Amino acid sequence: MTFNHKTNMLAGVRVLDMTQFEAGPSCTETLAWLGAEVVKLENPKGGDAGRYATSEKDGIDSFYFMQFNSGKKSITCNLKSPEGVALVKKLVREANVFIENFAPGVVKRMGLDFESIKKENPNIIYASVKGFAEGSPYENFLSFDMIGQSAGGVLSITGEPDGQPCKPGVTLADTGTGMLMSITILGALYRQQATGQGEHLQLAMQDAMTQYTRLAYAYRDLNGKAAPRAGAKLFTTGNAPTGIFPCKPGGKNDYVYIYTTRAGNHHWERLCKLLDREELIDDPRFSGPKERAKNEAVIDNILAEFTKKHTKREAMKLVGECGVPCGAVLDVAELYDDEDLNSRGIFQNMDHPERGSYKMPTWPVKVDGGHLSLPASPLLGEHVDSVLSEWIGMSPEEIEKLRKDGAV
Amino acid sequence: MTFNHKTNMLAGVRVLDMTQFEAGPSCTETLAWLGAEVVKLENPKGGDAGRYATSEKDGIDSFYFMQFNSGKKSITCNLKSPEGVALVKKLVREANVFIENFAPGVVKRMGLDFESIKKENPNIIYASVKGFAEGSPYENFLSFDMIGQSAGGVLSITGEPDGQPCKPGVTLADTGTGMLMSITILGALYRQQATGQGEHLQLAMQDAMTQYTRLAYAYRDLNGKAAPRAGAKLFTTGNAPTGIFPCKPGGKNDYVYIYTTRAGNHHWERLCKLLDREELIDDPRFSGPKERAKNEAVIDNILAEFTKKHTKREAMKLVGECGVPCGAVLDVAELYDDEDLNSRGIFQNMDHPERGSYKMPTWPVKVDGGHLSLPASPLLGEHVDSVLSEWIGMSPEEIEKLRKDGAV
Repeated sequence: MTFNHKTNMLAGVRVLDMTQFEAGPSCTETLAWLGAEVVKLENPKGGDAGRYATSEKDGIDSFYFMQFNSGKKSITCNLKSPEGVALVKKLVREANVFIENFAPGVVKRMGLDFESIKKENPNIIYASVKGFAEGSPYENFLSFDMIGQSAGGVLSITGEPDGQPCKPGVTLADTGTGMLMSITILGALYRQQATGQGEHLQLAMQDAMTQYTRLAYAYRDLNGKAAPRAGAKLFTTGNAPTGIFPCKPGGKNDYVYIYTTRAGNHHWERLCKLLDREELIDDPRFSGPKERAKNEAVIDNILAEFTKKHTKREAMKLVGECGVPCGAVLDVAELYDDEDLNSRGIFQNMDHPERGSYKMPTWPVKVDGGHLSLPASPLLGEHVDSVLSEWIGMSPEEIEKLRKDGAV
Repeated sequence: MTFNHKTNMLAGVRVLDMTQFEAGPSCTETLAWLGAEVVKLENPKGGDAGRYATSEKDGIDSFYFMQFNSGKKSITCNLKSPEGVALVKKLVREANVFIENFAPGVVKRMGLDFESIKKENPNIIYASVKGFAEGSPYENFLSFDMIGQSAGGVLSITGEPDGQPCKPGVTLADTGTGMLMSITILGALYRQQATGQGEHLQLAMQDAMTQYTRLAYAYRDLNGKAAPRAGAKLFTTGNAPTGIFPCKPGGKNDYVYIYTTRAGNHHWERLCKLLDREELIDDPRFSGPKERAKNEAVIDNILAEFTKKHTKREAMKLVGECGVPCGAVLDVAELYDDEDLNSRGIFQNMDHPERGSYKMPTWPVKVDGGHLSLPASPLLGEHVDSVLSEWIGMSPEEIEKLRKDGAV
């Protein structure tokens, strides 16, 4: 197994990163992983609001922070001091990208809004991530992941059919939003490389959710009403068997997902053979997709009888090998320890200056036969001297003065 | 309100797109939306397997297909004929990117695997999306969205605390995977523009899910066990009030999400004032984050009493305006008709040659003050003549011969 030390796709690209928590940091982390120099600008008093907040020990970087800031550099900068704001303006002249996800109104108050930054660098790509969009009735509202998912439609289509709306465990309005901004920044970088042109990019969490919920809009168009909740099944319905089936030894995540197509009978027939129930192939109750959909409860019972005799890994192997789509419901502890995902380099260790070795998922796309070797997240202000020297030629004396003035 | 007719960020970029269903098409659609020329290569007999499958009428493009193929061109090509395969090889010499998401083994059998394509164009960016990774014990298994989400950990952290795993309504292993591949292709395009270098990119749905579930891995690291399911609340816990609260008139999605921070009492105090219950601020049961967490059930009842008196939109306005993060649980029909999202250009109409006007979400990132004007999805084979002429200089007679031979 080879890991790529760095991908270097974005060699030479400089990103000035004024983001915190997850929606912004997940975006700039992808840019760092692809080879950009991402300099995170942090409050000297505690840094990124997510840096220490969920840590189990005072003053040490949280796992949460480490997960979303791998591969970045960190400089401190006091944005409440004129020297701090002046420093940002100097740095932005050397940057390709400037990005922020402060609460509504904050960058304007600091004099670091798009118009102000563009005066310093007309070719800048300026990116803002917010909870609600400029011009929305909610534009001044605070937002976090669960708010974006609620107002963006995700909760309404997640949960049991007769139950309340449920929040997916994934942080889709944070990382999902970050991924869409990353795509757009990369598009803008492609043009900037060719023409020098900058760009103003704005994305709201609520709006970003429409990109991930489009199957539900297709459902609305077909059925003239909002897509419902369907538990572990699909709101699009009509495919039986489709869903999770219980496995040995009956724990909370001991299930295997089995999906069969509506386009023909081949998946169903393969299942009947696997179950040694070939007589069901000619049973009129199951003779076609419509018939099977009508008799879904009967089919689910037949299949559950089979899956209950196996662990989820065994069931997955048996069903998958006979050519029917299936997957065990794996939990994050199982995945964390999974031999396959570890040996292929999906999980890797960063070498953190204070935590030591820390294992987490790296960029899941394999590039040229290997995965990115996971770089460390930065300590608060770790790169003040090197970045101020390399980006804007500051002398050690000038940097020392900024420190004394409390600007960095 | 201004809409950008085209973004043109990727002007001149050519993508040869052999993907179907959603994981691949959602990826190439972003490239088309950013301005690349994406040519979708489809089976002359029915095209992309998702084109007609879920349509309500025979022979007309499904809403599902339209959602994921906006802005692309379509050419037909019979990959079972030697002429068809030869045509792909000619086209790939003119492309920057080649992408496929066929079932395991298929491109190899067709002679269109990475090694074969690289011989035709050593600078190509070759991207493959699969359910399970090369080298995984499941590499030959079929997969769809729900399988990727199960095996990737997403179901294990979604659902009610005492219930079964639940599938988020969002198609995260499809579109979520597509977005990560899009990011990596764009990184590779940036380098290709600078150096000419091509790249081999591979992504599996199962692996892609680790990017969206990282909060659950941080939980595992803190707690030494898999993250649990938490319904509409957060598995990270500790913040009260946090969750959905019932609103008038009590329908399935009549809830408002309210979140309060653990970092201080300010959100809580604002809520108490809003509820005209300022005496609760000094109540020792709610004096700090830990105390509130312990008395969560009491707090939830107090807050529900208030929210029940209002519709979700009213409650959102009242709570949000007092500076507490909140969002109504909006369903996709409400969002589809939402005046704000429509007037801002998040929803737009494509002008489809057969369907007429069709409304769907466009790219949610605002670029230079406006959103992408939504381009139509292509009819099957709509661009055979123009693409074969423009890309490889074929004459009308040559194209006619390919048609007669059944190659296009």
